[in-house]
Amino acid sequence: MNGVARGFTAQEFEQRLLRAQQLMAMARLDALLLTTEPEVRYFTGFLTRFWESPTRPWFLLVPATGKPVAVIPTIGAELMGKTWIEDIRTWRSPDLADDGVALLADAIRNLVGNGGRIGLPTGHETLLRMPLQDFQALSQKLTPLQLVGDDDILRRLRMVKSPAEIDKIETACAIGGRAFERVGDIAKEGIGLEEVFRRFQMVCLEEGADWVPYLAGGAGKNGYADVISPAAAAPLNRGDVLMLDTGLVWDGYFCDFDRNFAIGESDETASRAHQNLVEATQAGFEVAKPGARAADLFHAMDRIVTGGKGTSEVGRLGHGLGMQLTEWPSLIPDDYTVLEEGMVLTLEPGIETGRGRMMVHEENIVITRDGARWLTDTAEPALPAIG
Amino acid sequence: MNGVARGFTAQEFEQRLLRAQQLMAMARLDALLLTTEPEVRYFTGFLTRFWESPTRPWFLLVPATGKPVAVIPTIGAELMGKTWIEDIRTWRSPDLADDGVALLADAIRNLVGNGGRIGLPTGHETLLRMPLQDFQALSQKLTPLQLVGDDDILRRLRMVKSPAEIDKIETACAIGGRAFERVGDIAKEGIGLEEVFRRFQMVCLEEGADWVPYLAGGAGKNGYADVISPAAAAPLNRGDVLMLDTGLVWDGYFCDFDRNFAIGESDETASRAHQNLVEATQAGFEVAKPGARAADLFHAMDRIVTGGKGTSEVGRLGHGLGMQLTEWPSLIPDDYTVLEEGMVLTLEPGIETGRGRMMVHEENIVITRDGARWLTDTAEPALPAIG
Repeated sequence: MNGVARGFTAQEFEQRLLRAQQLMAMARLDALLLTTEPEVRYFTGFLTRFWESPTRPWFLLVPATGKPVAVIPTIGAELMGKTWIEDIRTWRSPDLADDGVALLADAIRNLVGNGGRIGLPTGHETLLRMPLQDFQALSQKLTPLQLVGDDDILRRLRMVKSPAEIDKIETACAIGGRAFERVGDIAKEGIGLEEVFRRFQMVCLEEGADWVPYLAGGAGKNGYADVISPAAAAPLNRGDVLMLDTGLVWDGYFCDFDRNFAIGESDETASRAHQNLVEATQAGFEVAKPGARAADLFHAMDRIVTGGKGTSEVGRLGHGLGMQLTEWPSLIPDDYTVLEEGMVLTLEPGIETGRGRMMVHEENIVITRDGARWLTDTAEPALPAIG
Repeated sequence: MNGVARGFTAQEFEQRLLRAQQLMAMARLDALLLTTEPEVRYFTGFLTRFWESPTRPWFLLVPATGKPVAVIPTIGAELMGKTWIEDIRTWRSPDLADDGVALLADAIRNLVGNGGRIGLPTGHETLLRMPLQDFQALSQKLTPLQLVGDDDILRRLRMVKSPAEIDKIETACAIGGRAFERVGDIAKEGIGLEEVFRRFQMVCLEEGADWVPYLAGGAGKNGYADVISPAAAAPLNRGDVLMLDTGLVWDGYFCDFDRNFAIGESDETASRAHQNLVEATQAGFEVAKPGARAADLFHAMDRIVTGGKGTSEVGRLGHGLGMQLTEWPSLIPDDYTVLEEGMVLTLEPGIETGRGRMMVHEENIVITRDGARWLTDTAEPALPAIG
């Protein structure tokens, strides 16, 4: 539908593996143990919505040399067999006596022997997707092998996107953009936000989304009270500001951006806020280039939305984006991550429009050699009226 | 739209808390520490799709007496403030220096003092949704307080649904049922499975789903190779069997069932398999009553689909269902969970139809005092032809 191919070449996975193994050597790690959907997918291409089921653990081992080894439930063998992974070990999960722990321990010993250090993602924004009691059993079984942090290798790798990954995110952004152009058809005075949410998801699918894992929004006079509440049934009123924020997926990659609309007519407060927000994303865009720090983007936007007071209750003014709706880094004063070519970010300033009222605006960008490039078809400064 | 109210009464949350505290007393636990979406929602009603973002940790403490205490990012304060929870402590997350650990440790000490035992879900199908390094820092900070397993209290509580929860699941099932009735409008010879997936999600939304977190399926001559692969672009052929399996959500509760269709015409193998599968769900239904064990349902269905050999590669023939797509128990030979009134289950037999080919069928039931009750409008034994 858009000329961008699904999937990745084997070369792409080879390059990811090579970079991982270079970083592992520097960190003196003999293997990585991965348990979450994006981590497993990053090295394998294993793409399925089946992770929605929390029942079964899945494991991927990345050795110091050679290809990754999958230790997974039998139900995934067929699909994993279609990826570039060759060594696939399975057990019939769920197994209440041993849900893959012995098989995993054996696979680890096969790869690294009885000594060595196995790295796991343990830092901010990570989690271990296996039962804690199984992890403790694994640790004991593997002694004197050490289970340690991964030196943020997964974060460092995933933060910089390949051209093929950027194409997928840009495809998702284009789908979202076409969907936002149709909001005027589904939202107007008298229609409940709940119905707008339902219809907007349908429009995202119709425009080409594979699925719509995330939709948030709000509506009210001069803004909204928060940006994470489910949609209310109450009808939109003339003069409300409506905001829709979508995280839709194409081929396993997200876009994450929003649009604001005035229902029928906008008043001065909302219009001025919207203009400031668009100006703030522009200011963030201008400093977003290789060598700048995440914090620099925060300050560039914060100067416009708060005059430099840094008081956003949301906690940040943007973030990384890719296989997950939100990824490293965070656009906050304390995140000194240095931007590199290939990083994909959201610029997401918020502004207080009154007591307990706010407006937010969000665009997506990619860092290129010469500066940032918009992945979204950016919003105009004037708040658009619909309905 | 259906007479079922959104949300729950405060009484419902009080009863959940009371039952939890009774079980905690028996297990000598001074508090529970919860970190995942369904666990936090179970005691609070905090419902948002914002958990799609992995960035921020969220914590809920359930004390031995008194109401739960939420320790959460500021971005969730407004929404948590609308629930029945009163004690809400917040920090501006993400905070790279301390993402809520000190605040959580203080809250735990406030509740239980310097001694005592804090229970966490650590068994099968659980995970700890916080960075491992933060959990280790928390453990150290709290010493000599002990962080131990929760004696499966969360599992035991969540496995038995209240009438209000069952109403929500039944509402989701009804939406799914109406969507399946419309598959003939969107699937026929020449249309790709990818397009069928896209259209079917739109139909689910149009019929009333809040969102569609899960859709799986397959298509092929006499069945499909697996049930977790993403949809292929290749067009459906006359004589294919098409299966769609949806986990759609209404007010935070899932249905999880599938339907099979013959494209144009069905052949003998697929028709016979479908009839066996429907017969198997009927056999599972008949033994599903208070006092029966999960394993009994497995054997009742397995006798029909394999003649009692128990060789399903999927690993189980059904499971619990509720706030998550799959919940405890599992219908496997080794799960001796005793069924109780209020449990909601899927019956999901699979059958081999050829080398590397299978068909699956799934219905949803609730256990009542007198036996099972269908939550889904059950499939006819005859494989329906469409298109």
